Amino acid sequence: MGEIVTIEDPADPRLRDYVDLTDVQLRRRREPAEGLFIAEGEKVIRRALAAGYRMRSMLLTPKWIDVMRDVIADNPAETYAVSPDLAERVTGYHVHRGALAAMARKPPASAADLLATARRIVILEGIVDHTNVGAIYRSAAALGMDGVLLSPDCADPLYRRAVKVSMGAVFTVPYARLDEERWPDGLAAVREAGFRVLALTPGEGATDIREVAGRLPERVAVMLGAEGEGLTARALRAADERVRIPMAHEVDSLNVGAAAAVAFYALA
Amino acid sequence: MGEIVTIEDPADPRLRDYVDLTDVQLRRRREPAEGLFIAEGEKVIRRALAAGYRMRSMLLTPKWIDVMRDVIADNPAETYAVSPDLAERVTGYHVHRGALAAMARKPPASAADLLATARRIVILEGIVDHTNVGAIYRSAAALGMDGVLLSPDCADPLYRRAVKVSMGAVFTVPYARLDEERWPDGLAAVREAGFRVLALTPGEGATDIREVAGRLPERVAVMLGAEGEGLTARALRAADERVRIPMAHEVDSLNVGAAAAVAFYALA
Repeated sequence: MGEIVTIEDPADPRLRDYVDLTDVQLRRRREPAEGLFIAEGEKVIRRALAAGYRMRSMLLTPKWIDVMRDVIADNPAETYAVSPDLAERVTGYHVHRGALAAMARKPPASAADLLATARRIVILEGIVDHTNVGAIYRSAAALGMDGVLLSPDCADPLYRRAVKVSMGAVFTVPYARLDEERWPDGLAAVREAGFRVLALTPGEGATDIREVAGRLPERVAVMLGAEGEGLTARALRAADERVRIPMAHEVDSLNVGAAAAVAFYALA
Repeated sequence: MGEIVTIEDPADPRLRDYVDLTDVQLRRRREPAEGLFIAEGEKVIRRALAAGYRMRSMLLTPKWIDVMRDVIADNPAETYAVSPDLAERVTGYHVHRGALAAMARKPPASAADLLATARRIVILEGIVDHTNVGAIYRSAAALGMDGVLLSPDCADPLYRRAVKVSMGAVFTVPYARLDEERWPDGLAAVREAGFRVLALTPGEGATDIREVAGRLPERVAVMLGAEGEGLTARALRAADERVRIPMAHEVDSLNVGAAAAVAFYALA
């Protein structure tokens, strides 16, 4: 059972994990460097624990102490009981859901491990928006994708906003990040593992995804690029085939989250 | 050609359409009551004009005057040239895209007109989140839906955030709102117009959408409910059939925007 500690001083060093949560630049640097991430809200905290993440501490406003009683009892981490006002002063925002947990990251998974067992994977290139990353994980989990490979410049799936939007799917969908030297050359390893790499793009010369869906091999990787620019020329060249979702009207494209959901469904 | 008027006083009554844009409660009341909506950013403003909306005025920071020169020349509305600081004081936020237009709403379309010509329609119940409404319109436009019917409690598609997320699709996809007395009884009119009304729900007893897609009549309406609660029991009863997107893992559901995109694609 973890101890419940009432804290009234916003400068208390035990609150360090929760400081300035709205400073995206700061948190993006600090959290990976310190091996931590923030889970927000009861459901997400419970899902992080269920997925085997270790809790460093919880920060709860009074009415959440009761709701989280079982979590406190089952876990050695300390719980910091704070007023809503103090929570806001420390984090920088009004914590609507009154429950935050600082969780420890796990060692990064390797692409090789992921490729060894998966049959359907997602490859993301340059998706820098945390909301889009979270939404893609949520759809990937719901629509049967087995894992995600991230280009070096993709946003962190364990950033608070991504975690929240994913509804905790970032905890259950395995993923690995390819490093700078291995992007996009690392895609050769994906092909060597027996995957057909499909690049999703609205561009010329792409095959209708409905046609592709009729002749899928056992192992398929679907690659999605950044909102706006789409996949880079290098990533497109590294793919086996370009596929497109048929579009109506004079619309630029689907939002990358919507395109991902459609592609996962079509290729399931 | 519209006149360019430099304004330096944030209390200038000509700026009234742009006051307190971040006050969602206020704007949600004022904009429909005053027959106005706000288009934000060059692309969205141009799309609103192309869709035949009348411009009441534009609010531009200096560097946008040149970009919008042709719009100013072709349009009788006044342009208010303001500093970025004044724009922020008036609207309540830092206007990144430096170009806002106050546009006049059109008279609401009737459901009967929409039903007379459409073959694929979307029915939304209780979608109160502007981002979700905008995302659904964007996907509807891209994936060939001909129109949208809104329940009385759905968020306003012409609210600034919805317009922006939709990338202007709210201007091109026809829609009508059913009033309180006609919800969900008004769905009988949808059926009478020859549509099969499909309720999208993860609930028990729903048919796999892939099975339904194989036996679609000419006219199909797909009905989506609120994030979280989903469709109400009344709406479900008013449908011809319940359909579900097959889900993997132990995921609650897809985000409503992702579910909409998949359903539009599957039923196209």
